[in-house]
Amino acid sequence: MIILFGVFIRYNEESDTHWTEHRKAKNISSDIENDFYFRYPSFQDVHVMIFVGFGFLMTFLKKYSFGAVGFNFLIAAFGLQWALLMQGWFHSLDYSDGKIKIGVENLINADFCVAGCLIAYGAVLGKVSPVQLMVMTLFGITLFAVEEYIILDLIHARDAGGSMVIHTFGGYYGLSISWMLYRPNLDRSNRLQGSVYHSDVFAMIGTLFLWMFWPSFNSAVTDHGDGQHRAFINTYLALASTVLTTVAISSLFQKHGKLDMVHIQNSTLAGGVAVGTAAEFMLMPYGSLIVGFFCGIISTLGYIYLTPFMEKYLKIQDTCGIHNLHAMPGVIGGIVGAITAAAATESVYGAEGLANTFDFEGAFEDTKPTRQGGLQAAGLCVAICFGIGGGIIVGCILRLPIWGDPADEHCFDDQAYWELPDEEEEESIPPVLQYNNHHTHNKDIAVSNFNMEQN
Amino acid sequence: MIILFGVFIRYNEESDTHWTEHRKAKNISSDIENDFYFRYPSFQDVHVMIFVGFGFLMTFLKKYSFGAVGFNFLIAAFGLQWALLMQGWFHSLDYSDGKIKIGVENLINADFCVAGCLIAYGAVLGKVSPVQLMVMTLFGITLFAVEEYIILDLIHARDAGGSMVIHTFGGYYGLSISWMLYRPNLDRSNRLQGSVYHSDVFAMIGTLFLWMFWPSFNSAVTDHGDGQHRAFINTYLALASTVLTTVAISSLFQKHGKLDMVHIQNSTLAGGVAVGTAAEFMLMPYGSLIVGFFCGIISTLGYIYLTPFMEKYLKIQDTCGIHNLHAMPGVIGGIVGAITAAAATESVYGAEGLANTFDFEGAFEDTKPTRQGGLQAAGLCVAICFGIGGGIIVGCILRLPIWGDPADEHCFDDQAYWELPDEEEEESIPPVLQYNNHHTHNKDIAVSNFNMEQN
Amino acid sequence: MIILFGVFIRYNEESDTHWTEHRKAKNISSDIENDFYFRYPSFQDVHVMIFVGFGFLMTFLKKYSFGAVGFNFLIAAFGLQWALLMQGWFHSLDYSDGKIKIGVENLINADFCVAGCLIAYGAVLGKVSPVQLMVMTLFGITLFAVEEYIILDLIHARDAGGSMVIHTFGGYYGLSISWMLYRPNLDRSNRLQGSVYHSDVFAMIGTLFLWMFWPSFNSAVTDHGDGQHRAFINTYLALASTVLTTVAISSLFQKHGKLDMVHIQNSTLAGGVAVGTAAEFMLMPYGSLIVGFFCGIISTLGYIYLTPFMEKYLKIQDTCGIHNLHAMPGVIGGIVGAITAAAATESVYGAEGLANTFDFEGAFEDTKPTRQGGLQAAGLCVAICFGIGGGIIVGCILRLPIWGDPADEHCFDDQAYWELPDEEEEESIPPVLQYNNHHTHNKDIAVSNFNMEQN
Repeated sequence: MIILFGVFIRYNEESDTHWTEHRKAKNISSDIENDFYFRYPSFQDVHVMIFVGFGFLMTFLKKYSFGAVGFNFLIAAFGLQWALLMQGWFHSLDYSDGKIKIGVENLINADFCVAGCLIAYGAVLGKVSPVQLMVMTLFGITLFAVEEYIILDLIHARDAGGSMVIHTFGGYYGLSISWMLYRPNLDRSNRLQGSVYHSDVFAMIGTLFLWMFWPSFNSAVTDHGDGQHRAFINTYLALASTVLTTVAISSLFQKHGKLDMVHIQNSTLAGGVAVGTAAEFMLMPYGSLIVGFFCGIISTLGYIYLTPFMEKYLKIQDTCGIHNLHAMPGVIGGIVGAITAAAATESVYGAEGLANTFDFEGAFEDTKPTRQGGLQAAGLCVAICFGIGGGIIVGCILRLPIWGDPADEHCFDDQAYWELPDEEEEESIPPVLQYNNHHTHNKDIAVSNFNMEQN
Repeated sequence: MIILFGVFIRYNEESDTHWTEHRKAKNISSDIENDFYFRYPSFQDVHVMIFVGFGFLMTFLKKYSFGAVGFNFLIAAFGLQWALLMQGWFHSLDYSDGKIKIGVENLINADFCVAGCLIAYGAVLGKVSPVQLMVMTLFGITLFAVEEYIILDLIHARDAGGSMVIHTFGGYYGLSISWMLYRPNLDRSNRLQGSVYHSDVFAMIGTLFLWMFWPSFNSAVTDHGDGQHRAFINTYLALASTVLTTVAISSLFQKHGKLDMVHIQNSTLAGGVAVGTAAEFMLMPYGSLIVGFFCGIISTLGYIYLTPFMEKYLKIQDTCGIHNLHAMPGVIGGIVGAITAAAATESVYGAEGLANTFDFEGAFEDTKPTRQGGLQAAGLCVAICFGIGGGIIVGCILRLPIWGDPADEHCFDDQAYWELPDEEEEESIPPVLQYNNHHTHNKDIAVSNFNMEQN
Repeated sequence: MIILFGVFIRYNEESDTHWTEHRKAKNISSDIENDFYFRYPSFQDVHVMIFVGFGFLMTFLKKYSFGAVGFNFLIAAFGLQWALLMQGWFHSLDYSDGKIKIGVENLINADFCVAGCLIAYGAVLGKVSPVQLMVMTLFGITLFAVEEYIILDLIHARDAGGSMVIHTFGGYYGLSISWMLYRPNLDRSNRLQGSVYHSDVFAMIGTLFLWMFWPSFNSAVTDHGDGQHRAFINTYLALASTVLTTVAISSLFQKHGKLDMVHIQNSTLAGGVAVGTAAEFMLMPYGSLIVGFFCGIISTLGYIYLTPFMEKYLKIQDTCGIHNLHAMPGVIGGIVGAITAAAATESVYGAEGLANTFDFEGAFEDTKPTRQGGLQAAGLCVAICFGIGGGIIVGCILRLPIWGDPADEHCFDDQAYWELPDEEEEESIPPVLQYNNHHTHNKDIAVSNFNMEQN
């Protein structure tokens, strides 16, 4: 990795000490116009989503919190280095000297790329070894970079928040792997598959940081100025609307009208996924609300009906329910994006605004919005194909018996890969049982003896 | 909601695709001068305060963490949509086409508006149903928008951090509702009214995020440039000073000099509330310290003496002690603001600075600082009246027996509205008791039988 | 404190109401060029690191979470006020009127200064009283300000992320104090020195927020434009690389290849410390990876071998292992900085870039990079001397028997300084035991009686 970075990666002109000269040459009036100041706050928000958001969202299992946060940390840190290289080769290679020039936008894109793999991790959470995760990430990043290149550069679809590129791909990639790694006897670790009270509260930390910073996710790499502004507003509204429908549906479909924490933790985020593609378009505030409204319904119903169905009949064990949170909303997002693009008119966008928003320049100068809609749809298909195809291939590799995956009865158990605090075992619940058994056992004997003596 | 948004809400010129044209027309040299870049980092901090800060601050109860975080999430997401509409009608309506044009500042204001209702939630935490909360929020937001319009637009008081508009109003609104919903037999759920060790640590997450981001709260909608800069410095200093006095007072007034976590969680934040109004004025760094110093004392003493007094004699049950954290410091903030405004001179502010800071323009061009002080005081009175009056009316509505509020013995219990993880019940403490009872019971019988046989 | 602030502290021209006039005088085209907008997002990230990052990182102990978060909060809030004064006198004193003019950069520096003391807190965590902590902070801040003045202003070393000024100083300061306060009978509180499952998850919150925001820490006060951009990229890469080596080493050196949570919580951060000085130089992306790579190895091995060795033979009890996380990586960072500075050439930096980066102006206009390398090394020595010397002196003061430090058997126990929730004691584990004992005891008697009667 160090060697590859040594050979290929350099600073770009905005992060190089030649910036002052570059600034003067380009007649930029102030340091504040360095791309850093446009994107750094969004970058940090995305960074929080990747490490705290995804990490803590998966801590809901009662004995897999270390694995959720820790392995998430590991594969994200590995993935972003690899992503800088892979995305660099496809997107940012400077052909004049064969170097990849990196700046803040590349680092955001690397975080995005990692997000795809973390989504896939959600499907296999607790059922794979860290080595399998590394392999999954290695191939996932590579597939992602190719897929992204095809969708964004060749097909010239727009996908600011990555509904297609990140969520659809990541979701189906993870589901296919989980399908390949189907464990018929997973119920042996049934005792560990639920949550405990405090682990659900930890998971809410993840949910909330994802929810709050999703507007930054969708606006991080959109156009300076109005593009970032609009993407953030659309995402904010879609998410707000999803929360309401999720709560309503969760309460309606549960017995006694009680709320299910799983839905609150996950389905509330579906709206952010589904406006990913269209966030930078003129979706209009009410459009965002509509998208969020339907996504909340579909995602919550998915948790109630679809996940058990998939596990039983399709043999797909989806630990975190990523199909309901990422895959389906991602597809919806792709479709919404295609429709919004196809419906774009100059009267709404303005002539210049239309060209800016859809990047109609160079070879694409004469693209019409309707055609752009078709391109968006094509992009969605590519994402699905790459996800399913790539997942099956990588799943085959992961089935090789060399990766040290846990036995069925040790799934969802941190014990397998972590040094757990011993004291807990002794001090909290089990010792009470032990003590208790021991004590009563002694007493039994004592009583028996006593009675024996009586006799 | 979707229909209302469809009819009324549009992007403003900074988030619309016509931004490029608008920029050229206004001769703005760079995209970085889009209001988005001035306010977005502050917006995200405020957003974190609303969802993580308020949400986790209320998780201190041992069995109401789901309700604290979850209902906070629900009413915040509902409230901000409604707030966009209500505040839009009063503040941002474009009379030329009857539309509300929204941008980042509107979304910050919607978050502020929601903050008022979340403060009120603190007073009734654990004692109301989600439906009651929704009703409370619906009316709260409406009252807030009217009150804000009167204070800021008609009276022309300044209130950057909302000491009066948000905290005083929200505090008294919640207290009045709690007074109307007085439960004489609340001690039936006494067993659930304390905290456990880890729930207090969760609450510290809320406290710290509120504390850290309060400077952003108070500076989010102040003037570009020096206004935001100064508001942030003042808040930072006031908060730092409050922490010291809170710890000192908590230690002095508790037996054995031990610290009380309730004070650390809440009173440390009072300084931020109390500089809300004056933060953008030339309060001077030592002024901020003085405000923080006194607020720490008052707020901590409030928890020690006033809250029990209010519960016993005034029949106001204030679960989170919002009177000490929001209502009293808010009033202090209003008074400090009035004094600071009245004491403003051209020698300190500069002629142009004075006009900028207090927005002396248009119809208010000839306002004198002394008069502005009076206007601030008038604003404070309006906030108190709206809070108490509105709270009593809404409290009456909430007393109708149709809202499904929990019985006295189910207050502060997540069981009432949430599907709790079953496993916990079986695996952690109670099952030990069960097992134990069961076991010993059997043994009792066995022993009896054995002894019987002996006889 | 209030009096000192009243006498000395004023707003600087960017946070004063005279900003508009100042802007026009300096021909600054827009409010966005106020330093606030360059630094505020970074400031908030640093602020989160100080309060949430350091606070939660130390919550890993099973019964010292209140002390970790609470005392961290207390000394940080106290320290930053004192730091504003001390750093102000040394750095920002305006000799024309004897006032310290503060703005966002001063507040970031105050947070940095506090970081040094919080690092030292890590070494003595659980073994000192809050009063001792306040004394330690008071002297620590004072020493820090002097040391910083010597290193940055007199020697003219560069230290953007404070590898030397903050981490080396803070680390050795804390270790020396811990050495002076050696407790030979600390094993009496052995039962409290481990972690429990959920306290480790809380500590991961601290780790992740430190990890994510470290790029902001190292870039917060670097030069506008390329300086901030480059410092952030270097730190990001170094940290990513450290995670991988930490996981690898932790797994290799533990029995059964299991991971140790202590390493993941701490060593993953070492890379950020070690690029602190060189982050703003042209370290090159692969250089950052190399630094992170080695730091991960050294820091993890430090936890495995060095900490037990130091406790046994050098009589230094280092609760959080700050030697491995701050002191050693800090020294490495100083050395890397010296080498990178000495190796700087005009061909890489450009003539103007070289002068900008190393601030070669005024009296230092003719400094050569090689000489700068020597200055950096000199700075490192000063930091170590101040840390060890200052720590020994302050340690002597803290040994006076007037500070109320806890007895050996009450170390690491929140009970000593906090009102703990009583209910927990009764409701969770011990009560079960009690109930159980009580019950079985009664039964014993009953059984005995019964049997007695039989006889």
